[in-house]
Amino acid sequence: MKRFPKPAPKPDEAGAGRRAREDGDIDFGILPELVGYHIRRAQVAVFGDFATAMADRQITPGQFGILELVGKNPGLSQSALARAVGVERSTMVAVINDLEQRDFIRREPSTVDRRSHAIVLTREGGKTLLVLERIVREHDQRVSGHLSKKEKGLLIGLINGLIPGGRQA
Amino acid sequence: MKRFPKPAPKPDEAGAGRRAREDGDIDFGILPELVGYHIRRAQVAVFGDFATAMADRQITPGQFGILELVGKNPGLSQSALARAVGVERSTMVAVINDLEQRDFIRREPSTVDRRSHAIVLTREGGKTLLVLERIVREHDQRVSGHLSKKEKGLLIGLINGLIPGGRQA
Repeated sequence: MKRFPKPAPKPDEAGAGRRAREDGDIDFGILPELVGYHIRRAQVAVFGDFATAMADRQITPGQFGILELVGKNPGLSQSALARAVGVERSTMVAVINDLEQRDFIRREPSTVDRRSHAIVLTREGGKTLLVLERIVREHDQRVSGHLSKKEKGLLIGLINGLIPGGRQA
Repeated sequence: MKRFPKPAPKPDEAGAGRRAREDGDIDFGILPELVGYHIRRAQVAVFGDFATAMADRQITPGQFGILELVGKNPGLSQSALARAVGVERSTMVAVINDLEQRDFIRREPSTVDRRSHAIVLTREGGKTLLVLERIVREHDQRVSGHLSKKEKGLLIGLINGLIPGGRQA
């Protein structure tokens, strides 16, 4: 994410033209007042760092989240995983299919409900998850390592309070 | 976004099966420690509210941002707009094409640089932007209206401090 550095104006452009502006003079209107605008910019920046960190492994934040959930909660159903991350079951099935093809997870027959599967990590998935956790921790350190523990807690609390109405739904 | 409410366990499932869990008992592992995880969840929730608010108008946050920038800075080039929002010029050209087809903006010959265009709102675009600004303000009120002015400033400051290294690049 760019800070929109203000380059020195070229003499032949300064003040010329149809209100042409140097980047540093751009009026962002109501955008800087909008919390959503800042969240979106942060998401773009954070995602960019995550994607760079995972370039060799091609793991998205969503995929990492699923592997982490499966690793910590072996045997959950696809429906339970979908509810946990707040996506449609069909979306979750697609993610699970992909992770299964890559031999990170497998579907086992559920002992609770014959119509569903219990999702577990494969041996390869378990090994990979340990590496991914290290990469993700390093990534998050780059993102927020400058914050004190108190500031980090404050930030997370404020973020999680956004759209409180939507949360109750 | 769901708070993962904890339903009462069904008697025939409680403690049964292959470590099947009720949703409320899910262990999120390292995810809750990660600032990026919370940013992404907030972005999903905020985007969801924005998309609902704009369902009749089919305007994305990115498109709104461009309209706002063009409205406040008539005559910017596509390259300057791309730099301002931190996207590739080719991406910006596609966005501008779409907004031009919808008669919200038009390209005029630049008086500064014959090789570029000056982007301005059409009359229709100017009228539409006023409506969109109202919708977006209402949306942001839903997102963050519960925060005091001080809390909002604190949140924005903390968000904007994320990935400080990336910012300098």
